[in-house]
Parts: sequence; C-alpha cells; structure tokens
Amino acid sequence: MIDWKKWKHVTKLDPDKTITPKAVAEIVDSGTDAIMISGTQNITKDNVSHLVEMLKDYSIPKVLEPAGTEGLRDDMDLIFVPSILNTDVAFWLMGVHKIWVQHFDVDWEKIVPEAYIVMNPRSAVAMVTKAKTEMTPREAAAYGECADRFFHFPIVYVEYSGTFGDPALVRAVREKLHGARLYYGGGINSREKAEEMARYADTIVVGNAVYEAEGVEKLRETIVK
Amino acid sequence: MIDWKKWKHVTKLDPDKTITPKAVAEIVDSGTDAIMISGTQNITKDNVSHLVEMLKDYSIPKVLEPAGTEGLRDDMDLIFVPSILNTDVAFWLMGVHKIWVQHFDVDWEKIVPEAYIVMNPRSAVAMVTKAKTEMTPREAAAYGECADRFFHFPIVYVEYSGTFGDPALVRAVREKLHGARLYYGGGINSREKAEEMARYADTIVVGNAVYEAEGVEKLRETIVK
Repeated sequence: MIDWKKWKHVTKLDPDKTITPKAVAEIVDSGTDAIMISGTQNITKDNVSHLVEMLKDYSIPKVLEPAGTEGLRDDMDLIFVPSILNTDVAFWLMGVHKIWVQHFDVDWEKIVPEAYIVMNPRSAVAMVTKAKTEMTPREAAAYGECADRFFHFPIVYVEYSGTFGDPALVRAVREKLHGARLYYGGGINSREKAEEMARYADTIVVGNAVYEAEGVEKLRETIVK
Repeated sequence: MIDWKKWKHVTKLDPDKTITPKAVAEIVDSGTDAIMISGTQNITKDNVSHLVEMLKDYSIPKVLEPAGTEGLRDDMDLIFVPSILNTDVAFWLMGVHKIWVQHFDVDWEKIVPEAYIVMNPRSAVAMVTKAKTEMTPREAAAYGECADRFFHFPIVYVEYSGTFGDPALVRAVREKLHGARLYYGGGINSREKAEEMARYADTIVVGNAVYEAEGVEKLRETIVK
C-alpha cells in the first residue's frame, strides 16, 4: 500500500499539455514523491491514456485526479477526488461524486477525497466551478476546519493555480487543521517559493513549472525535504 | 462519553411545539435511548432553553440538532449537525457549517455530522433547503454511499418528515453503507411501522407521534429493540 501521507512533493502533469519521454524520465528521477495526472480542460480518455502509457515503466506512485467522470480508469495507484468547498454550486461539492458513485463501481480503497479551496478567480477550475475566491485568511481557515473536522477530508488543498498565493492564508488554514494534510499548489517555480509554502503545507504541488523552459531544472529546485 | 452508536430509538422534540412536564417524564421513561431537540421553523434561543430546562433533571442523553446557528448552546451532551445531500444549494450542504465554524468556537468532541436525504417535498426542511426529493432507491443509495465513503459521515439520515417512507428505498441505502449508521425518520406511530423501518435502519426516530392524542402510548409501541 502506498503511503501517500508521507509525500512532501508532488508533480502534476496535465494530459492536455505536451511533454517528451526524456522530460518524463527526468521528472520521475527528480526526487518528487509522486506524479499526479490532472487537468481541468480537454481531458479525454485518449490523452489520459497517453500520459499513463508514458509513465507505465516507472515505479513512482501515480495518482489520477479526475476533473469529472471522463478519463477515469482502474489502473492507477490512487485516485485523488476533488471536491470544491468555496462554491455555491453543490454539484462541485458532492453532486458529481454522487453521479459517479451511482454509475461506476468505485474501489474505495484507492480513493482519497480532497477538499479544494480554489483561490485564483482567473483559473479554469474557478471558472468551471463558479468558485468564490474572494476571502480572508480567516474564512479560508474556516473552510479548512470544516473540511477536516466535519467532513473528515484527509486532504485540504489550497489551490492558487498558476499564481503564487498568500502565505498568510496558507498558514491560517494550517493552524485550523487537526487531522487533514495540507496541500498547496500554485506558482511554485523556485526554491525560495517552495520553501516558503513548505513551511505551512505538508505537501507542495508543482505543475506549470515543468512545462516552462528548463522545466525539469526548475522542478528539481522546488524539491525541499 | 455517551455511546450514541448504540442507540436504536430516538425521540425528537420540537421546541416550537407544546409539551407537558408529565409527557416529558413519560417519554424519558419510555425506553427511548435519547432525546433530540430539533425543529426547522421558529427555533429560538428561548424555546430551545425552555425545552432544555424541562429535561434538565433527567439523565437520558440529550442531543441538540440545530437547523442553523440560532439556538446553539454548549450544555448539551452532543450536537448532531445536519448537512443536506439532495440539494443544489451548497449552503445547506456545507455553507452554513462554514459560517458557524468561522464565528463560533466549536467543541468538536460533541459534534456528530449527519448526512440528510430529505424525502418529503412538502416538509419544512425540504422547502427551506430546496431539496430535490424526487429520486429512485438507487439514487438515494448513491447519496448514502457518497456520504459514508467519501465524506465519512457517521450518520446517514433518511428523513420522510411526517410521512411514512418507502422501505425499499431505506433498504437500498442500507445496502450501500459501510461505516455510517442509518437513521430513519418519518411517520412512525405504530409497532408495525417501527418494526418495518428498524429492519433496515440502525436507529429510528419518532417525533410527531408524541404530539398526537395518546402520544406517549404510541411512542412506547414504537420502541422495538
């Protein structure tokens, strides 16, 4: 059984973006703890398969983070299933999950629920889920506390998607968590930024940086343990 | 610590309804496992206090089930906090909880989250929460499975509020539960109805019956263990 609770660094790969086999090999070898296959837009069975295929010879833990029921598959080590906290639309909090449970035979041993606090109003995830991103650190902390203590989410995920977030807000969420692990994602592309967020988050997630010029080199910088 | 997981029969008293001290004494003595103070409409600090005061000399476990932040208090044994699954309005699923957590200092040791499936479209709770009550047993079961496995609710509560429900639906929910206890409420006012629902539900809740003529006698009939 994969002990995902020990991960400190996760690399997110987007099925909708292009990556070379060489870059994949270097990412796997970088010291990151796991690969998360995740994207919000244009996720298809085909592009997920393509990425899974590129990763299949590596023993690094592989996680699928579905944006919907599209692209779901049985051959991943774990499935991290997001639920959006800061939206008025119940569909993104639990509606889509109910539909999924109703129509698929879920292997609950592989499921890790994630409570997302979506912070970047211009991100695809915020627009799709109608996230209410305007909030104080205290409000974000209340979302985190609720997710942790009321809904028993094992992961609370503060997601700034492509922009570097407010460390004070991440710290405020941290202070209210009891059992959940805190994930941070968004804008990490240097050692300095990685260290800053790793101070509060249990796990930092690096995504976009690997698609930039000298991406793998940047990724290596962000691995602080 | 009160072992609420062993309860098979709970009596719900509504702060907005009138009850005599004699009836309260008889209810406490009936064999019911706990008293739940709960209502949807006209719940005030005063009428909750009045009911709590009537119960204060009895050692029977007392649970408050708040409909909102109004009437919340610290002196109850436990607080069962409902969350409505079958609504599009995220506020009733977790929004009100977030506001509560943000503004009150919650004693999590006393909190038991409940996942409600609201079934009676004419009930106050359905109208207030805009519940989508039209559903198949399979759909109800998917809600239950989601609540149990994804959100780790310790209680899944099928609520027919004042009408006797569909045993096939309650059974379908039962079959999908893994860790959660199944509560059933609605229209139980005879031994036959109590036995029927107790076949599937771990705990049956009797409310309206105690306010009918010969209420306590009817209540005693519903205690099947």
